[in-house]
Amino acid sequence: MELSSYLDEFARRDWEEPTEEGPVRFAMVGMGWWTRTQAIPAVAESDYCETTVVVSRSEEKAAEAATLADSIEHAITGEQFHDGVAADAYDAVYVCTPNATHLEYVETAAALGKAVLCEKPMEGSVERARGIVDAVAAHDVPDMVAYRMQTEPAVRRAKELLEAGFIGDPVSVHGHMSQRLPEMFPDGKHWRYRRDLAGPGSTVTDIGLYPMNTARFLLDADPVAVSATMASEHEAFADVPDEYASFTMHFPDDVFATCTASQNAAQSSHLKVVGTEGEVTVEPAFFHRQDRGFRLARGDARLAVEFEQVDQMREEFDYFGNHLLTGRAPHPDAAHGLVDMRVIEAVYESAERGATVSLT
Amino acid sequence: MELSSYLDEFARRDWEEPTEEGPVRFAMVGMGWWTRTQAIPAVAESDYCETTVVVSRSEEKAAEAATLADSIEHAITGEQFHDGVAADAYDAVYVCTPNATHLEYVETAAALGKAVLCEKPMEGSVERARGIVDAVAAHDVPDMVAYRMQTEPAVRRAKELLEAGFIGDPVSVHGHMSQRLPEMFPDGKHWRYRRDLAGPGSTVTDIGLYPMNTARFLLDADPVAVSATMASEHEAFADVPDEYASFTMHFPDDVFATCTASQNAAQSSHLKVVGTEGEVTVEPAFFHRQDRGFRLARGDARLAVEFEQVDQMREEFDYFGNHLLTGRAPHPDAAHGLVDMRVIEAVYESAERGATVSLT
Repeated sequence: MELSSYLDEFARRDWEEPTEEGPVRFAMVGMGWWTRTQAIPAVAESDYCETTVVVSRSEEKAAEAATLADSIEHAITGEQFHDGVAADAYDAVYVCTPNATHLEYVETAAALGKAVLCEKPMEGSVERARGIVDAVAAHDVPDMVAYRMQTEPAVRRAKELLEAGFIGDPVSVHGHMSQRLPEMFPDGKHWRYRRDLAGPGSTVTDIGLYPMNTARFLLDADPVAVSATMASEHEAFADVPDEYASFTMHFPDDVFATCTASQNAAQSSHLKVVGTEGEVTVEPAFFHRQDRGFRLARGDARLAVEFEQVDQMREEFDYFGNHLLTGRAPHPDAAHGLVDMRVIEAVYESAERGATVSLT
Repeated sequence: MELSSYLDEFARRDWEEPTEEGPVRFAMVGMGWWTRTQAIPAVAESDYCETTVVVSRSEEKAAEAATLADSIEHAITGEQFHDGVAADAYDAVYVCTPNATHLEYVETAAALGKAVLCEKPMEGSVERARGIVDAVAAHDVPDMVAYRMQTEPAVRRAKELLEAGFIGDPVSVHGHMSQRLPEMFPDGKHWRYRRDLAGPGSTVTDIGLYPMNTARFLLDADPVAVSATMASEHEAFADVPDEYASFTMHFPDDVFATCTASQNAAQSSHLKVVGTEGEVTVEPAFFHRQDRGFRLARGDARLAVEFEQVDQMREEFDYFGNHLLTGRAPHPDAAHGLVDMRVIEAVYESAERGATVSLT
């Protein structure tokens, strides 16, 4: 890769193809803070997408959210969504409800023939995630799981370097993500504290997933075994086992990816891959509203790249929209997301059993 | 802590006490590359130590090494050392032979009433490491295990910050160390490839020990359980299980320290502690002839400190010498090193069994 491409075009959209079509009209499902404050504003800036419909469990929340973008034509309830209300007004559905409630929205969207962009983790269990895979397959609709790191320029540049052999063969990966959920949601009632809505736990499912999936993306491989440790102390995490978590994924060719995560620590994130010839580090790595850092080392040389930061959600929606408009299948699809669901369940199982869990 | 102390006195010797005594005269035991190219030159620059005796298995190697410093008066064999030859010419003994051969040298040194600075890991097994603890206790001689990170300014400043609560309560630790042993010792016959001389393995005992012990030092705590994964592929590592290794230490208060190490990857090292309020990173962290980096983050603020680098070996010898001359017990002692030996054995056991191993 040319050095100039790092200086001139770091944030280039290597995935973009020209199109005169569009925009893709979205029904945004789930009016939590993420959809309202991150997704809808990002779509408003998007080159290929617009929000035309907002869907909330409550009529009031839907009506409130209708003011978030000029393009919004319909504010409907979940029930109305399932009944096909306003189905002509959207082409695609973004599902951002609590994890364990994605399936039914995806099933309805697929049955209506809509493209599906589903937030991660896909669901609360492997079984229900399989339901998503089945639903999009049955109706042959385009589908993507919203791993925004996979369209983040720093991560894509890291992947290009790995593929070009810049660090030799990967040997080990370190990843971490932490934030302070009790400060973000002080009342302790948020769904991310609840096993019935978040999935088998809180930290691994919600943020441990970032280093987990980004490691898979960078290595272009899936883990064959995992071991994990976790613990909860703070009362807000009484229902989940993983206020603090660590897990190690054993990838093919004996690459070990070791990750930590916590919903109750300072905001921090990093991802580092060390290889036989060098290393690449993204730090900070994962938070939406924080600049990413990008560092390389090889032999005795080290360099840090400063680059134009992107809005990750806009990048993700533009990637999805551009692929739909140019008739290409977006990645990562539900089958890819299902692997993470299996890894997540294995992580919790490993922590509970105190033993390595095989994934083969 | 004052900001000015980071700018003016980063490398300050917080442990140093004035003395008119000295120098401490050393018998250096084991004339491998480390002693010859790192330890003896560092002692030559030391404020409190000098090398007066060199000890090698072979008469020729001892004679050759005698030219490494003007202060060297005697070049003797191991056998002569055990016979007490030239014992009047030294006050302390530095043991830097293959890991699994330390015990007998320490026993002789202790019986001769000499202070002992023993390289890490202390020995090849817990049982023989206990022999070292017993020997120095029986003869009541000052003892220290040569964990040079514990006298490294960046690590000491990190520890001060942790103790002052700068990052709140520690939550997770990441550590990594890798180097390319097959490039350093291409013939595959070096003792670090041999289980009978290196201990239960190669990577964890030799370099995994750095993040392991530095995490213990920074957290001022000992792990209560460990889990680990390891693998060997390259033929040079046919005798040891850990060309690649990862291990997670579970510390009290559910602090997880997750580490990777490899004897066959690019030279790389880092140590990061994330807490409830911030984080501290030493990167590069562990290599003797590489500058250390030091970074802090708290809230939205990040800073990197550039500071005067020290010769780690000189710092270690000066620490040891200054403590002997001022009648203070040096740290870390053999009892501290014994804990690492237990952790190391548990790491190999965990990897073999595929299960978490308790240390309580």
